[in-house]
Amino acid sequence: MAAKKILNVGLVGYGFMGRAHSNAFHKVSHFFPGDHTLALQAICGRDRAKAEAFAAQWGYRGIETDWRKLVERGDIDVIDIASPNDTHEEIALAAAAAGKMVLCEKPLGRNPGESQRMADAVEKAGVANMVWYNYRRIPAVMLAKQVADEGKLGRVFHYRAKFLQDWTISPDLPQGGAGLWRLDASVAGSGVTGDLLAHCIDTAMWLNGPIAEVCAMTETFVKERKHTLTGEVAPVGIDDASAFLARFTNGSLATFEATRYARGHKALYTLEMNGEHGSVFWDLHDLHRLQYFDHRDEGRVRGWRSIHVTDGDQPYMKNWWVPGLQIGYEHSFVHQVADFLAGLSSGQPAEPTFRAGLATDYVCDAVLRSARSRSWEAVPG
Amino acid sequence: MAAKKILNVGLVGYGFMGRAHSNAFHKVSHFFPGDHTLALQAICGRDRAKAEAFAAQWGYRGIETDWRKLVERGDIDVIDIASPNDTHEEIALAAAAAGKMVLCEKPLGRNPGESQRMADAVEKAGVANMVWYNYRRIPAVMLAKQVADEGKLGRVFHYRAKFLQDWTISPDLPQGGAGLWRLDASVAGSGVTGDLLAHCIDTAMWLNGPIAEVCAMTETFVKERKHTLTGEVAPVGIDDASAFLARFTNGSLATFEATRYARGHKALYTLEMNGEHGSVFWDLHDLHRLQYFDHRDEGRVRGWRSIHVTDGDQPYMKNWWVPGLQIGYEHSFVHQVADFLAGLSSGQPAEPTFRAGLATDYVCDAVLRSARSRSWEAVPG
Amino acid sequence: MAAKKILNVGLVGYGFMGRAHSNAFHKVSHFFPGDHTLALQAICGRDRAKAEAFAAQWGYRGIETDWRKLVERGDIDVIDIASPNDTHEEIALAAAAAGKMVLCEKPLGRNPGESQRMADAVEKAGVANMVWYNYRRIPAVMLAKQVADEGKLGRVFHYRAKFLQDWTISPDLPQGGAGLWRLDASVAGSGVTGDLLAHCIDTAMWLNGPIAEVCAMTETFVKERKHTLTGEVAPVGIDDASAFLARFTNGSLATFEATRYARGHKALYTLEMNGEHGSVFWDLHDLHRLQYFDHRDEGRVRGWRSIHVTDGDQPYMKNWWVPGLQIGYEHSFVHQVADFLAGLSSGQPAEPTFRAGLATDYVCDAVLRSARSRSWEAVPG
Amino acid sequence: MAAKKILNVGLVGYGFMGRAHSNAFHKVSHFFPGDHTLALQAICGRDRAKAEAFAAQWGYRGIETDWRKLVERGDIDVIDIASPNDTHEEIALAAAAAGKMVLCEKPLGRNPGESQRMADAVEKAGVANMVWYNYRRIPAVMLAKQVADEGKLGRVFHYRAKFLQDWTISPDLPQGGAGLWRLDASVAGSGVTGDLLAHCIDTAMWLNGPIAEVCAMTETFVKERKHTLTGEVAPVGIDDASAFLARFTNGSLATFEATRYARGHKALYTLEMNGEHGSVFWDLHDLHRLQYFDHRDEGRVRGWRSIHVTDGDQPYMKNWWVPGLQIGYEHSFVHQVADFLAGLSSGQPAEPTFRAGLATDYVCDAVLRSARSRSWEAVPG
Repeated sequence: MAAKKILNVGLVGYGFMGRAHSNAFHKVSHFFPGDHTLALQAICGRDRAKAEAFAAQWGYRGIETDWRKLVERGDIDVIDIASPNDTHEEIALAAAAAGKMVLCEKPLGRNPGESQRMADAVEKAGVANMVWYNYRRIPAVMLAKQVADEGKLGRVFHYRAKFLQDWTISPDLPQGGAGLWRLDASVAGSGVTGDLLAHCIDTAMWLNGPIAEVCAMTETFVKERKHTLTGEVAPVGIDDASAFLARFTNGSLATFEATRYARGHKALYTLEMNGEHGSVFWDLHDLHRLQYFDHRDEGRVRGWRSIHVTDGDQPYMKNWWVPGLQIGYEHSFVHQVADFLAGLSSGQPAEPTFRAGLATDYVCDAVLRSARSRSWEAVPG
Repeated sequence: MAAKKILNVGLVGYGFMGRAHSNAFHKVSHFFPGDHTLALQAICGRDRAKAEAFAAQWGYRGIETDWRKLVERGDIDVIDIASPNDTHEEIALAAAAAGKMVLCEKPLGRNPGESQRMADAVEKAGVANMVWYNYRRIPAVMLAKQVADEGKLGRVFHYRAKFLQDWTISPDLPQGGAGLWRLDASVAGSGVTGDLLAHCIDTAMWLNGPIAEVCAMTETFVKERKHTLTGEVAPVGIDDASAFLARFTNGSLATFEATRYARGHKALYTLEMNGEHGSVFWDLHDLHRLQYFDHRDEGRVRGWRSIHVTDGDQPYMKNWWVPGLQIGYEHSFVHQVADFLAGLSSGQPAEPTFRAGLATDYVCDAVLRSARSRSWEAVPG
Repeated sequence: MAAKKILNVGLVGYGFMGRAHSNAFHKVSHFFPGDHTLALQAICGRDRAKAEAFAAQWGYRGIETDWRKLVERGDIDVIDIASPNDTHEEIALAAAAAGKMVLCEKPLGRNPGESQRMADAVEKAGVANMVWYNYRRIPAVMLAKQVADEGKLGRVFHYRAKFLQDWTISPDLPQGGAGLWRLDASVAGSGVTGDLLAHCIDTAMWLNGPIAEVCAMTETFVKERKHTLTGEVAPVGIDDASAFLARFTNGSLATFEATRYARGHKALYTLEMNGEHGSVFWDLHDLHRLQYFDHRDEGRVRGWRSIHVTDGDQPYMKNWWVPGLQIGYEHSFVHQVADFLAGLSSGQPAEPTFRAGLATDYVCDAVLRSARSRSWEAVPG
Repeated sequence: MAAKKILNVGLVGYGFMGRAHSNAFHKVSHFFPGDHTLALQAICGRDRAKAEAFAAQWGYRGIETDWRKLVERGDIDVIDIASPNDTHEEIALAAAAAGKMVLCEKPLGRNPGESQRMADAVEKAGVANMVWYNYRRIPAVMLAKQVADEGKLGRVFHYRAKFLQDWTISPDLPQGGAGLWRLDASVAGSGVTGDLLAHCIDTAMWLNGPIAEVCAMTETFVKERKHTLTGEVAPVGIDDASAFLARFTNGSLATFEATRYARGHKALYTLEMNGEHGSVFWDLHDLHRLQYFDHRDEGRVRGWRSIHVTDGDQPYMKNWWVPGLQIGYEHSFVHQVADFLAGLSSGQPAEPTFRAGLATDYVCDAVLRSARSRSWEAVPG
């Protein structure tokens, strides 16, 4: 057995995504052993005590409280950016300049300008890079990709995606601060468009090709919220809800919608494609199933197949348990790391790279522009 | 267009089943026109006012208050027995002796002795006869029959049926009287065994062949209930719940269960067959769907198909609406009448005849005997 | 028992809707007896043989082959228009002028001009009138209405409706002629907008109030089809798919979509409302269920309730069977007739009247205009 | 922060369960930090190369090829038995004698005699012990336990459990050897009774109390299979399918069934309890949901609640991700380890101990005896 190449990871951010990534870094070698192995070298966060506690719990060897120091360290191979959106560009540019591989939480930047500079920087530096659009790596979603790529759907007529949540309905919820920066436009860039629709758009373009034009509406239901940093009531700058019509370049039509005001839905990301010969449907609340309709089945016994994606011949699943035993949300991150490392070995970079992430940000930007202009907007590209 | 043969129907009983049958008698000519047409000639019930009201509402030309008079009338071709179980034998024997066709609600008799005499009588008289095991005629159930008969399941290993209700949980519910005679053993013969399991058994033997032996348990959860006829609290003689293991003659194993104490289930009749190549599942609460699994589908995209049985190439459905528009419970009775009339035209009697109904009653009786003997009981036949 | 008032019905059209209405006319007195009873007096269709066959099958006393004659007959109280859309206005205006009550299939006219004249005519004549937006009368949909009206949802944030079919995907399907006039724009007025979205819009405004503005896109996937009347290939003038964003006057946002190119969906009409306290979801493929989420349930055991709408305390259901036994599509028409007759008795006209139907047509028209103008369009009214 | 107590684990077995346990040992400190932390000290397996590869992949510090040596090592605190059933007793007795804590895969022994000696041994030695009945620790199942314990169900009438698989239908599948020892009666003790029904019984008694008596049937569908160790065709000694009726001591009735011949079901463990006031239903194929019916909900809007068990107030979930994001099968093992360690801290041993595991084995044994005797068998205890 050849020695594995060890990659030292420096993580920025100890929030929800910091945990999700750290878990993936640990599990990847247990379930997807390959040429590389990851070492959790350092975690960086502004609060030293929190960073130390995180390091202790997750097995990081050390901490930093200034990301600039982390980026400068010679013992770090990979910088993983899991901090709020307003920090992405600066860290990514510095990491690329320092020759580090860069992983970045989605969306890349708060706007296409930031994202463009990030994509340019990693390409100029020639460093491996990837955006954490993890939902591509849910086995059922990857199976949908296979179904589409194999032509099982035929010509596509319709694409449909929603991402529905209900956690910000209360007007008493403040904006800003830990866990709540997603409600602060200056930090997040936008509301559900960048947070939720970005996921829907990334998957959609991966499955169905580029989006040509969009027409959108957005709404902010709660106009003012107390800001946790200032203690003052301040206008809410984000979109609480965002919906848009779209046309793909392949001629198919689409509807997209995201909101944090859909009571009863915690994180219901659904997607559906309707083609000439068949259709697929998936939803995040039952993420281990793919619904598939094949019109070429015998007519009398034709129906939507509820595929329990837990068999060894289905994407990623031979590395987990036995048929019938489902995996969950966190595994999508493990798969993404595994694919990233496999890409390093093969020389075929894992998608989505920063360049692909930029494409999604262009669509998000067109959506926000369209909501303001009340007209159709073409997507650059 | 040749003139249709008119059959005059005399209905006994104006309860729930009297309504279900009357509705079917009306609708059959609208949706399944054939050589015969039914005329609603008379309704018979002991309460004259109720009989008259029923006749007015349902379009019967006349009434009787004594079923003997109905049976003797020369203008009646078909006697339809929809009265409580303790009246079935006497009416059926008289109707057969009078040369009438006889339709009878299930179960035939309160015990195999009664049922045997009924089957013998109609056969001796040579009159058309049928038992109202209507669930065979749900399109999704008929589709399951086609799937099984075509060999799509292969060798059958397992059969599973349940009929769960929750309407008698309250100990304040009385026994006896209109609508409640099903709780009075002297009228009903048994509890859920004859009321609910009889349905399960009829469908099971139709789909999967004879049952060889059974081993059962029964329970009466509420031991005493007020009797509406006497006003006195009296012991409850029926089985509130009944479950049994069974072996079919084809070697497959089965579990059956019925109860009126399953909170949350109003009338949940479910059935499932597992064969070498495939499986089917159906439930009455979503009666317009058949779940079908075909192991010979391509492995990666194999899953239970939820078949929305509403297309023109599916059983009975070309006579109803357009694809996607579901029918309901009552339509099973329409189909049964249609099949009965088609049987008259073709000379191939519609099933289940009284003889087939007797076979079900033998299984019910073996179930009740087994519950008492606490041992396996062979099913006669 | 007071004598019932008999209303003689004259039906125009012997297609799918002619059957659905006739069935309802028969069943209403069996299941919803009231002050009125309907007599099926005459069926009118251009083809004499077909009209006679329809009359024989459905029990109409006579036929007409010219609707003008039907309208002029003194023995007709109610004209029911179930013929293609291009005939609605003319028949309705004549019927109103003749003092008949008028029932009309949806949509009222092919455009708001026609619909406006129809609404004006029946109001001027002072005759009872109703549009067959039957989906309001599905018990589960009516239950959703009760839930909303009782304030169980609180402030509404989102409304969402789709009507997905897949029956016109084949380019070999011709346009025009019996059953296919829905593909001929000159007859139908529009494609899925008037055929399918009209249903979605009617229910939506009934549940959630007026729609203020819309922004739409439409598409015709198959540009040319053979026309059955000429035998020539002709451009297709209808919209095969139509989707729109909307804002209700109550501030809630909506997405609507209809298509006949969604493989696997036969007639999947779905609707969802998300409010501050709760949500409801319904779909036509399982029409006997309402999904309901109540945020005020205890947190740990909170979940979407799958309500099997078959109990006596739920809308319309005490008149049908027993709990757990589902009804189907056709029953919505029975309910609508029952409500129409009840409205005659109470003096409170059943909805939707022609005036309400016109409101829906204004929205449909705004949708079609928006698709052409590629901009938001205000809804008149 | 006080120093954590480190417990060194020695694992026996590198099969499916060895992986499941190892993953849990790693994750527990990341997600459920407590007073103890586990060190993966040694893995023991007969094949040195495989043991070394397993150690490398899973981060064990060393290996052993003889479990006796492992048990004797002074640097081991916990022996975890994940090897085939025929090794459980011998290892457990030695480990207890050596004063080690003992974790053991289910079922404890191949028969109650072995299990009894194991329970006696750990109790005599006074060492912490636990059986891996992991399904208790699925959050949805734990929520069902809370619902039952809080009296939300009221008096229980019915319990129902099934465990359906389809992986041994092919007669070409051999018995014996790695992964296939479950088909060899001498190694496994029994077939689906000990493998699958044991899980159902453990959960059932935990939720609903002791089982008093059972009546069972078993079947071996494929009578002979090639044995991988000898290369010879040999009789199959295990039960391929096993079903039984049962009565709990609380008076409720039950049906249980397990099989490996139910086409379409990979690992469908389902359970249901019906009580006076409510019911719960759960299935392993959608393990993150609990179905719950509360009869005390308002009648009109009452329905089965599909509870997506992913909120912070639901069992174990505050330690994972955010609401709506599901976990999977493997997490039940993490929870079990976490509870075991918490039990060490609190002095309240985590269930099920060996003593509780023995109770399940008594029921399994009564099931197998009943299948042979064709009569009801009382459960000792």
